[in-house]
Amino acid sequence: MHHYRRSLYRILEISNGRRQGISLIFNLLLVTIITLNSIAIVLHTVPEYNQRFARLFYDFEFFSVVFFTIEYLLRIWVCVENELYRHWFWGRLRYIFSISGLIDFLAIFPFYFSLFATDLSIVRILRLFRIFRLFRMSRYSHAFRMIQRVVAEKKEELILSTILVIFMLIIVSSVMYYVEHAAQPDKFSSIPATMWWGVTAMTTVGYGDIHPITPLGKLLGGMTAIIGIGLFALPTGILVSGFNEHIRFHKTPLQNRCPHCGKEI
Amino acid sequence: MHHYRRSLYRILEISNGRRQGISLIFNLLLVTIITLNSIAIVLHTVPEYNQRFARLFYDFEFFSVVFFTIEYLLRIWVCVENELYRHWFWGRLRYIFSISGLIDFLAIFPFYFSLFATDLSIVRILRLFRIFRLFRMSRYSHAFRMIQRVVAEKKEELILSTILVIFMLIIVSSVMYYVEHAAQPDKFSSIPATMWWGVTAMTTVGYGDIHPITPLGKLLGGMTAIIGIGLFALPTGILVSGFNEHIRFHKTPLQNRCPHCGKEI
Amino acid sequence: MHHYRRSLYRILEISNGRRQGISLIFNLLLVTIITLNSIAIVLHTVPEYNQRFARLFYDFEFFSVVFFTIEYLLRIWVCVENELYRHWFWGRLRYIFSISGLIDFLAIFPFYFSLFATDLSIVRILRLFRIFRLFRMSRYSHAFRMIQRVVAEKKEELILSTILVIFMLIIVSSVMYYVEHAAQPDKFSSIPATMWWGVTAMTTVGYGDIHPITPLGKLLGGMTAIIGIGLFALPTGILVSGFNEHIRFHKTPLQNRCPHCGKEI
Amino acid sequence: MHHYRRSLYRILEISNGRRQGISLIFNLLLVTIITLNSIAIVLHTVPEYNQRFARLFYDFEFFSVVFFTIEYLLRIWVCVENELYRHWFWGRLRYIFSISGLIDFLAIFPFYFSLFATDLSIVRILRLFRIFRLFRMSRYSHAFRMIQRVVAEKKEELILSTILVIFMLIIVSSVMYYVEHAAQPDKFSSIPATMWWGVTAMTTVGYGDIHPITPLGKLLGGMTAIIGIGLFALPTGILVSGFNEHIRFHKTPLQNRCPHCGKEI
Repeated sequence: MHHYRRSLYRILEISNGRRQGISLIFNLLLVTIITLNSIAIVLHTVPEYNQRFARLFYDFEFFSVVFFTIEYLLRIWVCVENELYRHWFWGRLRYIFSISGLIDFLAIFPFYFSLFATDLSIVRILRLFRIFRLFRMSRYSHAFRMIQRVVAEKKEELILSTILVIFMLIIVSSVMYYVEHAAQPDKFSSIPATMWWGVTAMTTVGYGDIHPITPLGKLLGGMTAIIGIGLFALPTGILVSGFNEHIRFHKTPLQNRCPHCGKEI
Repeated sequence: MHHYRRSLYRILEISNGRRQGISLIFNLLLVTIITLNSIAIVLHTVPEYNQRFARLFYDFEFFSVVFFTIEYLLRIWVCVENELYRHWFWGRLRYIFSISGLIDFLAIFPFYFSLFATDLSIVRILRLFRIFRLFRMSRYSHAFRMIQRVVAEKKEELILSTILVIFMLIIVSSVMYYVEHAAQPDKFSSIPATMWWGVTAMTTVGYGDIHPITPLGKLLGGMTAIIGIGLFALPTGILVSGFNEHIRFHKTPLQNRCPHCGKEI
Repeated sequence: MHHYRRSLYRILEISNGRRQGISLIFNLLLVTIITLNSIAIVLHTVPEYNQRFARLFYDFEFFSVVFFTIEYLLRIWVCVENELYRHWFWGRLRYIFSISGLIDFLAIFPFYFSLFATDLSIVRILRLFRIFRLFRMSRYSHAFRMIQRVVAEKKEELILSTILVIFMLIIVSSVMYYVEHAAQPDKFSSIPATMWWGVTAMTTVGYGDIHPITPLGKLLGGMTAIIGIGLFALPTGILVSGFNEHIRFHKTPLQNRCPHCGKEI
Repeated sequence: MHHYRRSLYRILEISNGRRQGISLIFNLLLVTIITLNSIAIVLHTVPEYNQRFARLFYDFEFFSVVFFTIEYLLRIWVCVENELYRHWFWGRLRYIFSISGLIDFLAIFPFYFSLFATDLSIVRILRLFRIFRLFRMSRYSHAFRMIQRVVAEKKEELILSTILVIFMLIIVSSVMYYVEHAAQPDKFSSIPATMWWGVTAMTTVGYGDIHPITPLGKLLGGMTAIIGIGLFALPTGILVSGFNEHIRFHKTPLQNRCPHCGKEI
């Protein structure tokens, strides 16, 4: 029994770098099914395709849920092989509530919920969670983990940049509301409404549905766009220095020799 | 008396890294009140909420002003504990006119002014200053000071980039005015009016309310957008090198020693 | 015969840095003809010019195709001088199916195809491939190869960033579809239709033909723009660190010696 | 005579770092007049101000031209003090045709030309050149020269990035023309007309006056925006590595000691 569990664990989990034999085939299959699922969810909402391929969509949905349910239960069974979740009960519980465990659950939950729910609008919104299956693909990339590590190292600075953006957004939108409210009372109707303008201006999206028309508003709008670019240069700068640090410590071992004693550092 | 003042100073000021006991509780309370204030200022302008929660908004405003006033007076009282503002009179005066002192004053001033002002339009404009309460939160972040330092170190280059942007804006808008004025005399009515287009083009916002329609104007418009991106790459580049420098000098001193012989490299 | 082939090879191929005499003249001529061709293809679609200069366009097209055909055949003849394509048959076949060989073929193929094709709409689309002649100019730049190498070194990370963008696009568009579909069923008609909004929002293009109007949709739209800027900061960061690495390893070897004692640092 | 010329040269030229006494006062005056001139040129085009302050604008224009003319003649007289322009005739001629000499000439030339020209439309266009007076301010900044040097060092890569952008613009616009021409023949009327869309899409300006409506066109439009961001990440990356190089060699002298012999490098 334990032997089968260990073999199965090695097939399911690919994170330790072994990509050969059954494990590789299984994981390629999984990636294919997840990709096809995402395409199905997206095309499902096109009325034309939905009517024409209704049967196909339902069958593929049913097959996917069965496949993902079996895989989910097997993963809970074998997760105790991992050092992190070794205990037969608490380990499994912790795996269920880990990020990847929850994503796997959210990928199958909407289907079972829809069997009992009568209110269809709830079901439609829950179907959305199936898109989380996409995140499972993130397990398979080496470069993804590198980006993840850089983002994690610079978490504090990135969160701060976001807070700075929100600060500036509130301040700019408040000033713009008082400047432009009299000229366009229907568009700049309140500060929250003006914040929609603020976001489109600071991120330089500029849909054009709302923009200042008074000279003072335009001056402020121009300054906002320039400040916005400056603010969004901050996260870029932070990420760049993060990548540079990462590369300096991980990719340049040959140069890291002490010039005094010649040994590697 | 002096003993109480010192204790109070330690509770109010958190900048020296001590985050424990009453000091921590007080500062968390302050951050919460400032955040709630910002939300109240923003929601206050939504007519629906303003009518329904008029009483609540007024009460919270009153409570906040009383709280901030007491805090402001206490800060003036205890500021002499700080080396920078040691003199009992000149020190306190300098604290009042320091940046954080002025921000604290601007956070409570509009309320008191509105009690005596009869002209309501002035009151509305003054309400704007309440948004300065947001700036007070900037005291509490470590990463904020890091970003602040990088920006301060690169101040000269960043100001120059801004001047370059303004230069290019004036030149581009002037040329565009002469090119496009004949085709769209109502939109490109003058150089200042064209500068609104110039800002939306160079920052790539592009609301679409004003854009060239002649072939020559479109050629110039395309070049402007490309130049704009180049110009805004400058502050990004400056900030990035600023972050890199900061990290090189502040984060890696311990690693710059050979682990074998211990000498600095 | 072999002697002529070698001489011709040296004239046609400039990649080995020899830029003198006939070789230089020939290559300048080639660049000029390619540039004029591109201009002709672009101006050909302007009805006014097409009617007025119909004869000129046709003559230049005919001359270019003859020129490019002769050049193409000569290149196939002389390519065996290159170490990579040494075999008289397999080498030539491999050259024909190499990237630069295919581009050269695609530049002349549409003309010959149009002689036999009766369906004119197919011919019009095939003419498009002539624009590939532009890529041939890429042979002549040193800096181009530097950029190419940096992009190639960072290929994995850049592809991953693109995948991340596509992931985020699908997720954001799916959520937006369920949020905004009820309010604007004609614009946010399906997830694929919403993805058009998603792309314009994440890349901050913001044409304004489609944008959220509900408060929840606007909140999500603002977050999307901010996330989009963050995601597009990733490739910038990756490319920057790529350029830094490139410069560190390729441009500074001579400077890494102490000028006093001559030892490497 | 030569003594006066040398003194005057020291007053007029500030580039050698001496910023004291009359020289400083004169240069501050010059910057002020240039700034006021730029404001006058911009405000001159606002009909309201032009009518009300017509006299003031003319008088200031007259004063500026007289001032700049005297300054221009004096600069030509004293330029021989500079090592670069030492010869009494050829040196002065070379100064007149140097970049700063030409800018100074273009700043006064339109006024004198307008005295003789009868066709007013020519005069209006020539007035544009007065904006070049703004460039004269570039003489006075230290940081400007730093940015200038980084841009000059990376000239080759920046030009190549621009060429790459133009390449991609032509290719993307050509494909888009064939894709979208049938659906919107009035907007995507020719490849040059489509290039206007191409520029607004690649620079992410997105005015919204022209955008694809067919599914294939939208797919291509989305890809164009993503490619555009990637392309514009290149110059950012190039500039950043330029700034980093500059700082590494110019700002870190204390660390540049040979670890073997301890001497500065």
